[in-house]
Amino acid sequence: MSLADYKPIAAYLGPVASYSQQAALQAFSEVVWYLKPVTTIDDVCDATQDKKALLGVVPIENSTNGPVIFTLDDLADRDGRYKDLYVNGEIYVDVHHQLLGHKSANARAPTGGTSTPTAADPTPAQPKSQPLENLDHITKLYSHPQAFGQCTSFISTYLKNAEKFEVSSTSKAAEIVANDTSGTSAAISSKLAGDLYKLDTLAESIEDRDDNTTRFLIIGTEPTLPKDYPLKQDPATRTGTKSLVTFTVPHKSPGALADILGCFRDYQLDLTSINSRPSLQGPFQYIIFVEFEGHKLDDPDGRVKSALEKIEKVSQQFRWLGSWYTYR
Amino acid sequence: MSLADYKPIAAYLGPVASYSQQAALQAFSEVVWYLKPVTTIDDVCDATQDKKALLGVVPIENSTNGPVIFTLDDLADRDGRYKDLYVNGEIYVDVHHQLLGHKSANARAPTGGTSTPTAADPTPAQPKSQPLENLDHITKLYSHPQAFGQCTSFISTYLKNAEKFEVSSTSKAAEIVANDTSGTSAAISSKLAGDLYKLDTLAESIEDRDDNTTRFLIIGTEPTLPKDYPLKQDPATRTGTKSLVTFTVPHKSPGALADILGCFRDYQLDLTSINSRPSLQGPFQYIIFVEFEGHKLDDPDGRVKSALEKIEKVSQQFRWLGSWYTYR
Repeated sequence: MSLADYKPIAAYLGPVASYSQQAALQAFSEVVWYLKPVTTIDDVCDATQDKKALLGVVPIENSTNGPVIFTLDDLADRDGRYKDLYVNGEIYVDVHHQLLGHKSANARAPTGGTSTPTAADPTPAQPKSQPLENLDHITKLYSHPQAFGQCTSFISTYLKNAEKFEVSSTSKAAEIVANDTSGTSAAISSKLAGDLYKLDTLAESIEDRDDNTTRFLIIGTEPTLPKDYPLKQDPATRTGTKSLVTFTVPHKSPGALADILGCFRDYQLDLTSINSRPSLQGPFQYIIFVEFEGHKLDDPDGRVKSALEKIEKVSQQFRWLGSWYTYR
Repeated sequence: MSLADYKPIAAYLGPVASYSQQAALQAFSEVVWYLKPVTTIDDVCDATQDKKALLGVVPIENSTNGPVIFTLDDLADRDGRYKDLYVNGEIYVDVHHQLLGHKSANARAPTGGTSTPTAADPTPAQPKSQPLENLDHITKLYSHPQAFGQCTSFISTYLKNAEKFEVSSTSKAAEIVANDTSGTSAAISSKLAGDLYKLDTLAESIEDRDDNTTRFLIIGTEPTLPKDYPLKQDPATRTGTKSLVTFTVPHKSPGALADILGCFRDYQLDLTSINSRPSLQGPFQYIIFVEFEGHKLDDPDGRVKSALEKIEKVSQQFRWLGSWYTYR
């Protein structure tokens, strides 16, 4: 029997060394939990719904790129596949991309660079990070398309002439570079992947924006976190509460959406995010996702209870997807 | 001089025979307008903002796949590139995909098929359309990834063994098939593309859903449509009015989003859609898109004016992106 047989499983979107693993490591101690990478967001939801994992970790939005549609569509649960899922928590991961590869055999000074004005971008942003090593030997660059899009200044300044290859994940990129014995390829990937594949860090934090953050949700099949298997959450750092609800709007009652959204104001509940996806019940009918501050199960003045009761009456399909505590 | 020199230009997302061209043809008479395909959604917005086109046509949402992020991000206009753009109208296009190719040289009965239950999908949906021709000679299938996703039942029933190739547009797929002299390839594409490339229709309306519709916006640089160059809009078929606004919420005033959304209810304005994108002013701050019924410039009881004045006060960056008439 392996250790996994004795520990509760938390499933996350793999592969190993993905930013989802980083999220899982921030929230789950490996002393208590067995962290299991799976292939897709659907797989995380499947494993959790089918109780093959006690909890799951899925990305919900990135501060630069916006919502993760695959996760929203799973939570929309149009066909009842995920009827038992609840959101039990959230995790914020600062996304810092590293340039990983092999140092040049000849020790040389780090590569200098200048950003080149073009017709389309006459005043290009200066990259906020400089190479730690010489990059002249790098001819091939591997990463996920989103990561390329988040490191445009660094690439256009220091890696103008490298050929770019899009792969399925940033950790896959690091794996490819680790296996390239020529030493002329580099990956844009996480520090975690650099450690895993024993690559040299050629540059650190090469992302365009300092505040590039991905938010993940912890999902389970109970309304509250399991009591027997704690997470790394220090009650002293608790900052507040959040809840997520989804609803559809009666097709023949066009005023209902404004009515429902008005309910949050009626009970002084602050909205933190709002999204919509096609309900697929008819063209241009939507399932609306609203996150707000407040906790259905820790609701001393009853504002959450009152608002949700009212919304349930006015909306068509209403679902409370969970309430959780937020931490610093 | 070409005819284009005498006619106002309406730019649309190309290539020729795209669903965007179909949208443009629904709204614009080629007797009056020169319809110009451009390469990207940015190009449509650029041409319109820079007055190289009098109007532009961009896809805004599909009833199955949801919003078109590229268009939302252009309308969010975070850097002021599109400061003069207004929405002047909308166009709905029923998306019917055809299977286009070359009939088999030997006339044979149309291909029969059965949908195969799998572990993941034990009760597969029956395709609503059957082949018009025999498909046994089809070994390669070309289309845009979204179109593949919209025709899953037909493909899994009748084209199980064809190899799939993803290309940049459905009309590009038709072009490739037209140039393949072996006659063994087929494209999922529009009727318009079948006509353009003189392909045989092997099956019609092979999409999974009857109600697959894409909505397009007509954009310009004036708050109203140009008076001198009419569109194909029959006042007798007018059904109502719509407006689009965008706003950001003051970071230090978390109740503001519920407040602003409450304004629409205060003035009995029905919301027709709501979306959000990262504002990029700070992590997890959003620019909110709200569409509602009502017209700022045709507002007899002043409800739109009153609501927008109130929202402008409570929100941070507010923009009225336009009001337009809707037609049957």
